Amino acid sequence: MNAKLPVGVIGLGRMGQVYARHLAGRIPQAKIVAVADALEERARAFAAELEGVAWSTDYRDVLANPGVKAVFVISPTSTHREVVIAAAEAGKAIFCEKPVALTLADTDAMLAVIAQKGVLFQAGFMRRFDAGYMAAKKQIEAGIIGQPVTFKSVGRDPFCPDLEYARPSVSGGLILDMAIHDFDLGRWLMGDEVKRVYTEGGTLAFPQLNTVGDIDNAVVNMLFKNGTLGNVEVSRNALYGYDIRTEILGTTGGVQIGYYRQTPLLVLTRQGISHDMVPYLMERFGEAYLAQAQDFVERVRAEQPPVVTGQDARAALEIALAATQSYHQTRPIELPLDAEK
Amino acid sequence: MNAKLPVGVIGLGRMGQVYARHLAGRIPQAKIVAVADALEERARAFAAELEGVAWSTDYRDVLANPGVKAVFVISPTSTHREVVIAAAEAGKAIFCEKPVALTLADTDAMLAVIAQKGVLFQAGFMRRFDAGYMAAKKQIEAGIIGQPVTFKSVGRDPFCPDLEYARPSVSGGLILDMAIHDFDLGRWLMGDEVKRVYTEGGTLAFPQLNTVGDIDNAVVNMLFKNGTLGNVEVSRNALYGYDIRTEILGTTGGVQIGYYRQTPLLVLTRQGISHDMVPYLMERFGEAYLAQAQDFVERVRAEQPPVVTGQDARAALEIALAATQSYHQTRPIELPLDAEK
Amino acid sequence: MNAKLPVGVIGLGRMGQVYARHLAGRIPQAKIVAVADALEERARAFAAELEGVAWSTDYRDVLANPGVKAVFVISPTSTHREVVIAAAEAGKAIFCEKPVALTLADTDAMLAVIAQKGVLFQAGFMRRFDAGYMAAKKQIEAGIIGQPVTFKSVGRDPFCPDLEYARPSVSGGLILDMAIHDFDLGRWLMGDEVKRVYTEGGTLAFPQLNTVGDIDNAVVNMLFKNGTLGNVEVSRNALYGYDIRTEILGTTGGVQIGYYRQTPLLVLTRQGISHDMVPYLMERFGEAYLAQAQDFVERVRAEQPPVVTGQDARAALEIALAATQSYHQTRPIELPLDAEK
Amino acid sequence: MNAKLPVGVIGLGRMGQVYARHLAGRIPQAKIVAVADALEERARAFAAELEGVAWSTDYRDVLANPGVKAVFVISPTSTHREVVIAAAEAGKAIFCEKPVALTLADTDAMLAVIAQKGVLFQAGFMRRFDAGYMAAKKQIEAGIIGQPVTFKSVGRDPFCPDLEYARPSVSGGLILDMAIHDFDLGRWLMGDEVKRVYTEGGTLAFPQLNTVGDIDNAVVNMLFKNGTLGNVEVSRNALYGYDIRTEILGTTGGVQIGYYRQTPLLVLTRQGISHDMVPYLMERFGEAYLAQAQDFVERVRAEQPPVVTGQDARAALEIALAATQSYHQTRPIELPLDAEK
Repeated sequence: MNAKLPVGVIGLGRMGQVYARHLAGRIPQAKIVAVADALEERARAFAAELEGVAWSTDYRDVLANPGVKAVFVISPTSTHREVVIAAAEAGKAIFCEKPVALTLADTDAMLAVIAQKGVLFQAGFMRRFDAGYMAAKKQIEAGIIGQPVTFKSVGRDPFCPDLEYARPSVSGGLILDMAIHDFDLGRWLMGDEVKRVYTEGGTLAFPQLNTVGDIDNAVVNMLFKNGTLGNVEVSRNALYGYDIRTEILGTTGGVQIGYYRQTPLLVLTRQGISHDMVPYLMERFGEAYLAQAQDFVERVRAEQPPVVTGQDARAALEIALAATQSYHQTRPIELPLDAEK
Repeated sequence: MNAKLPVGVIGLGRMGQVYARHLAGRIPQAKIVAVADALEERARAFAAELEGVAWSTDYRDVLANPGVKAVFVISPTSTHREVVIAAAEAGKAIFCEKPVALTLADTDAMLAVIAQKGVLFQAGFMRRFDAGYMAAKKQIEAGIIGQPVTFKSVGRDPFCPDLEYARPSVSGGLILDMAIHDFDLGRWLMGDEVKRVYTEGGTLAFPQLNTVGDIDNAVVNMLFKNGTLGNVEVSRNALYGYDIRTEILGTTGGVQIGYYRQTPLLVLTRQGISHDMVPYLMERFGEAYLAQAQDFVERVRAEQPPVVTGQDARAALEIALAATQSYHQTRPIELPLDAEK
Repeated sequence: MNAKLPVGVIGLGRMGQVYARHLAGRIPQAKIVAVADALEERARAFAAELEGVAWSTDYRDVLANPGVKAVFVISPTSTHREVVIAAAEAGKAIFCEKPVALTLADTDAMLAVIAQKGVLFQAGFMRRFDAGYMAAKKQIEAGIIGQPVTFKSVGRDPFCPDLEYARPSVSGGLILDMAIHDFDLGRWLMGDEVKRVYTEGGTLAFPQLNTVGDIDNAVVNMLFKNGTLGNVEVSRNALYGYDIRTEILGTTGGVQIGYYRQTPLLVLTRQGISHDMVPYLMERFGEAYLAQAQDFVERVRAEQPPVVTGQDARAALEIALAATQSYHQTRPIELPLDAEK
Repeated sequence: MNAKLPVGVIGLGRMGQVYARHLAGRIPQAKIVAVADALEERARAFAAELEGVAWSTDYRDVLANPGVKAVFVISPTSTHREVVIAAAEAGKAIFCEKPVALTLADTDAMLAVIAQKGVLFQAGFMRRFDAGYMAAKKQIEAGIIGQPVTFKSVGRDPFCPDLEYARPSVSGGLILDMAIHDFDLGRWLMGDEVKRVYTEGGTLAFPQLNTVGDIDNAVVNMLFKNGTLGNVEVSRNALYGYDIRTEILGTTGGVQIGYYRQTPLLVLTRQGISHDMVPYLMERFGEAYLAQAQDFVERVRAEQPPVVTGQDARAALEIALAATQSYHQTRPIELPLDAEK
């Protein structure tokens, strides 16, 4: 086999560390050679744990490293535009965690440089690498459900996020933060673009979100270009666990993705039959994050186009922006949006 | 115990026979004494099967029978107004199968006479008598899920109906025909009225429905008065079976009603693990229809108010009409509707 | 269609009333004309509930009734020999609830008269009429699992029975009382006879059973004549519910019969995901009892041989006796047993 | 934190590579420094993949390496006695994959040297490190099921093993090869020793096993010392997948460990509802193997006693030998066995 792909990781927060550890221990085709994080302690500690990894508090050091062929941009969303553009200009292959940006303008600025420099760019939508979603896609493509008719997706988090994070200027707000995954899945699994969305939402469980301008629940109706339908529900108050489900109904059958039981144990008592629940993100999608990073590494090495492109990221963002706008304006919003806004 | 309640059944189509057989064999507190159906053969054959039951092709004979204390109106929807008003004027207690009517005007005309005559009137929404839905209501009332936040309901039929039936002038169209159940459940389980609906829909599986002006799929977003949310999906093309599911997410938990396996058998082969599916209405709600009829009989005997009132029937109809209007006008529709339309 | 089958019911205890009500209200092909129960009050009350039913405290009155063509013998096991023989001599078709008898000698005496008189005799093993077990049989016969290899069956009751009933002289003891169902299923689903059994058992949950000589748990290993295997577990202490499961592993697949959730409701809270459990016998096998009685009625009317014969009852009893003997003697017991014992 | 534990891996077959990769990439507390495999190519290739790992075709080189503090013995069972004794004499902490040996005599010889040298020794029973089994143990210890009454365990492989492997002189035969896991679980979860076993078995699916003296199916009844019960079923012909299930029934409740669906996808078509199945060992227990190795590494570093001792390995082996003997002799076998045999 040919040489390992030397990679850098920019951003060592919770998710950055997940990527970095996967790259260090579970992806033999990659070799992590440089990391950067604005917090010196975090960067230094992480580099100490792995041997032979350069660290810095400045992402530009990673980009300046000629040994680095590809970078994982896992820094805060607000930094993505600057970092991705710099990485593209440095000629690196780029993996950028979702959301790539909070505005179409930022996204378009990044995609323009990426296109100009011709670097490989992959957006992070790990659900596409989950065994369940991949198997669903395969069944649909094999014609098992006939023609897709309706896309349904539920994304429920088990807690109220930190208020600083919930702030729409940081996270994009509930719909952009959470439903963007579902919108990406909708485009991918239905094989079509969204034409119109309509949202109802509210702050129903965590009134504190009102103070930062966010909501905690929304239902979004979707119409695809070919006339097929969709509905996405997102919530922050599934205190029982991390509830991620998607289904596609077709003309002759359906597929449903998702599961509830985390530990393979059933407890039977006079009070009933019970089991535990998937607690949160990494328990549900840990392997998908690994598969996503592996896939990126393999595609960079093989010089193949990515599975999730910058255009995919832009399209999901656009739906999320439209759905957010619909909530605020109480009316259906037609796509495409005006990119200047 | 006191005497059996003597009842009449008007309409002996598929559902009418279900009610009549329940009353004849499984509800000891009732005694079926008269039946009517426009088809002489049907009325005669049914009366022959049971002993001592009078039959007629004219529902007025049932109403004129002084021995009849209560009637089940299971005739076509288009006849409900006339039959129910006549039954009320005859002083009978009335059970009327859903939909009570296709317009608010018809409904209001019926409810006016019912109120004037002071007869007991119960509308048929059998799901409220299903063990699963009843248990869900109990859990919600016990506070197990905290405050209800989102109502989700799926109603999928496994086939395209007869085109004559599908015609909106007969069935009311997809939303009125199917989603009316879900709208009733929404009001009941959320404990609130609907303020606004928005519908996307289409004819995606059975193009023949276009010829009679009906559609086969719809997703309806709902906003309740207190700000809580809802989404209802109805479809005619769940060829895999009769798929009826409802869930309520609350501030601290959730309930989900529904099931898929009809026969308690799992088959394990190299092709995977498989089981059958609930095929259709009576397999899923047969016992609920029985419980509903039992409950009506008991309430008439005990002179107690019904569980599902005429106002409930009107409210569910109004939501269905608004949701249908939203589909046609591609805009959110606020309730209440103008009853004159 | 031809006339209804006039039937008598002998024994109006819990199960006798179940049969009688099914015959009265849900089996249009039958007409219950006479009942008998040693308790006058019970017989009288039941006859009062139905119109036109003769009652007596003496089963011989039912048998002497020339209008009765078939009888359901649901009286205590200790009376079966006398009643069944008298019924056969009276020329009635006979349905006899399980166990037909507690000894092979009693069984043989009954079967001899039945054979001599040529009356139709069906033994009560209602599981054979359960939708799950019937579907499993069909799958096996269709070759879906290849050749059956191992039969596994679990029968767990949710409580300790009345000590008077538990007494082996009354119930036959745990294995005969409960596992006889599983032994019948084993013969039927494996299509083979049992050659050898070995039992381990004990009184592990309800020490009071020791006072009447019964146990509360047993595991029985089985070897069928063709070399295939089996294991049956019975228990009286499944306090969580009525746990009835059977599986057959074959050379190319398997089937599993059974289910746990009674009400179609899932409750999701921070404590986990939970649902209720099938509480007891009638919730699980109510419809099977109905189907069994219907089948008997239809076979008597059509003069067809019964699904479960006296020889079937004898064979299941013989396995149960051997398994009980194995427990007492701590050694494998080979079949056939000596019928004189 | 203190330094990484330097480990050697002896045996790089399928399972050896699993352990080695876990140690190299997913257990930060360990550092793999030496490997040995009788196949030069395998040892060389593996060392080439990791950097800085010494390799040899002679396990004694690993033991002679003073940098190695602990060894994983994953070589063929027939080599365990020699390798483990040499490792103990070299003062290494030892993890030995199951089965530790095929005879009590071999086991006792190994345990004697281990005891004499005072080295830490852990036997490989990965199921004890599975999330489901660990959670079950916790529930039992918390008293949720009351007193354990019956232990049931099913272990089914999806294919006939290589005939050379199936040979009882190599694998120990079906019961020793497969049911030894269940016997270990029985002792652990029931908290008791086995007193008596009785086995029925046969070659029912793969007649070719007769040529090497093995069988493909067995059911083993167990009696524990305190009178509680057990039953273990093992099979090689679950062609539908890897079917591993255990349940413990107690005086007030029960626990069930196991699951069937591998991928979180349900497919709904007119043919029914279906999903895939856990295909084989690593899909089911991959994470348990990792947790087991992690636990061993942590215990060696912390100088804590192992979770699964040599005595545990011996006790499970003894039950397996007794169950095998019972099959051959068609009689219950009492424990303890004579260790000289």
